[in-house]
Amino acid sequence: MNGILRGHTLSTLIFMNLTSDWIAGFTDGEGCFHVSVNRHKELKIGFQVLPEFVITQHERDIQVLYAIKKFFGYGTVRSNHDDRSCLRIRDRVGLNKVCEFFMRTSLKTRKAQDFYKFRTVLLMMNDNKHLNTEGLIEIIDIIKQMNTQDRSTLNTIREELKGKDMVHTNDENVGDM
Amino acid sequence: MNGILRGHTLSTLIFMNLTSDWIAGFTDGEGCFHVSVNRHKELKIGFQVLPEFVITQHERDIQVLYAIKKFFGYGTVRSNHDDRSCLRIRDRVGLNKVCEFFMRTSLKTRKAQDFYKFRTVLLMMNDNKHLNTEGLIEIIDIIKQMNTQDRSTLNTIREELKGKDMVHTNDENVGDM
Repeated sequence: MNGILRGHTLSTLIFMNLTSDWIAGFTDGEGCFHVSVNRHKELKIGFQVLPEFVITQHERDIQVLYAIKKFFGYGTVRSNHDDRSCLRIRDRVGLNKVCEFFMRTSLKTRKAQDFYKFRTVLLMMNDNKHLNTEGLIEIIDIIKQMNTQDRSTLNTIREELKGKDMVHTNDENVGDM
Repeated sequence: MNGILRGHTLSTLIFMNLTSDWIAGFTDGEGCFHVSVNRHKELKIGFQVLPEFVITQHERDIQVLYAIKKFFGYGTVRSNHDDRSCLRIRDRVGLNKVCEFFMRTSLKTRKAQDFYKFRTVLLMMNDNKHLNTEGLIEIIDIIKQMNTQDRSTLNTIREELKGKDMVHTNDENVGDM
């Protein structure tokens, strides 16, 4: 841990108490609600929906990322390329917790709009709607309105799904990715 | 106002209540404590110290900048180049208010270190120490530790000041810039 947290004492980490409003303000500045759709051969529908909540910071502020991770109780802090570090929450339970938090503690910037779309996708995934063609197309249409993945890639996937005329129901055992 | 605030209703502006902790979190993400030293022929010492608190945002979130301006009661919101807007507080009384605020509501990132240096410069300016050579050199040495102006420019000014062997006292009438 010392290697990652060079320059930060353990006490800094332990005693960094973050309030809900501080986290909302910091997320309004630095947070990102991201959903990507990737090809995934193991899944019957052929695509995986990957929602994530990400905060990127200069490595010198990695202790803040650990504190936010601790606050939500989920996530992974990693050093990125160059001198950037990021907290990434991908776990579904963790993301539901993140969504509950931001429903209680509202964002003030237009990022709130991305959040509401992100939450809609997550709720659909909670209902396994990402595992059938109709639901996945609906999710893609929502993602396209967010500031996320390359729209042309999403359009290609969307066309592919429509062309396949695949019908997946929620009952199919394709794994909950 | 409608031109600047396109897409934002007046009610959005009026009812955006920002808490102290949200502002601290947002500043940890997006705020900047900046001090520059510029040549100024009208001043006897030849240089002007210009501290400013700046928050830059995409134009779509200009209403947040207006809300922060309203919170502090000081500042100017302007559209920058491209699609960026920024809130800039330069007024000394306003900056003292900003400093008082961040002494009460602490920043969590390393930006706090910049803030403390910024505050030190401001307190020195409140005592007119920027108007004499010794004080100005001390201020330059503080600014050099912040992530601000080009260090080589500051070093040039510093050397010039030392070389001039100028002695300005706080009593000299050089104007309070």
